[in-house]
Amino acid sequence: MKRNLVAAALAVSLGGVAGFAAAQAKPEVLVKQRQAVMTLQGKYFGPIAGMASGKVPYNADAVARNATYLENLSQMAWDGFHEATRDEKNTRALPKIYAEKAKFDDYAQRLQAETAKLGQLARAKDEAGVKKQFPAVLNTCNGCHDDFRSK
Amino acid sequence: MKRNLVAAALAVSLGGVAGFAAAQAKPEVLVKQRQAVMTLQGKYFGPIAGMASGKVPYNADAVARNATYLENLSQMAWDGFHEATRDEKNTRALPKIYAEKAKFDDYAQRLQAETAKLGQLARAKDEAGVKKQFPAVLNTCNGCHDDFRSK
Repeated sequence: MKRNLVAAALAVSLGGVAGFAAAQAKPEVLVKQRQAVMTLQGKYFGPIAGMASGKVPYNADAVARNATYLENLSQMAWDGFHEATRDEKNTRALPKIYAEKAKFDDYAQRLQAETAKLGQLARAKDEAGVKKQFPAVLNTCNGCHDDFRSK
Repeated sequence: MKRNLVAAALAVSLGGVAGFAAAQAKPEVLVKQRQAVMTLQGKYFGPIAGMASGKVPYNADAVARNATYLENLSQMAWDGFHEATRDEKNTRALPKIYAEKAKFDDYAQRLQAETAKLGQLARAKDEAGVKKQFPAVLNTCNGCHDDFRSK
């Protein structure tokens, strides 16, 4: 079993991770991995959105934890947007990502930077700061989705 | 669009996250979220497995980054194993998880503890320590899969 899990993990993972060439991972695996990141970003961003917008009572510990997860997650999707995935069908990511890679990469950098700021404020239990920073994260998500995701 | 993303994120996420009652999230959403965690754990564990077992040249920076991601990811799946998901079909998780919850929770605690140790060693660039700690993480994964995942 030990050997099996290592073998399976290696087969799936080598290439999808920095330090390895992304071209080694199968395109459908890259799509699955980047969609997993989006799913988890939604899981942890949702409650922050609810609390930052006042729809849900503010819980500083939950915000600190979620924002730290988001800071990590915001780094995980990008190597999955490899040109080898351009023709994959099971994705809403538009092929123009690869024609406008600099613009796409700029969104990726901005998301990481804005999420890092949110994490810092959240861990400092700075509720006012979180509420002020939250729209910067949201606008980056929405900007990239508007430009590079099918409706 | 801003409002839409918040609304969608809230609809999906409230309840799946600590600080909220998990019962509020739909069972199929909980399954999707926990499977996303497993997918990403595979993505980041695979290269560590390859390097720790000597199959791939050791890259201390990649190990430090991957192990830190794993330390975060190892905390994310557990609230998704809610009893409401017991009868979900699109999962290999066995219903006996909920009959043997203490044993399952022990695996969850061990994975988080062993992964935290791995992260600490990896960030200290302690290659020998990582190679010694890696089997403890692997054995925890495999133990839980053997006991609680269908073959």
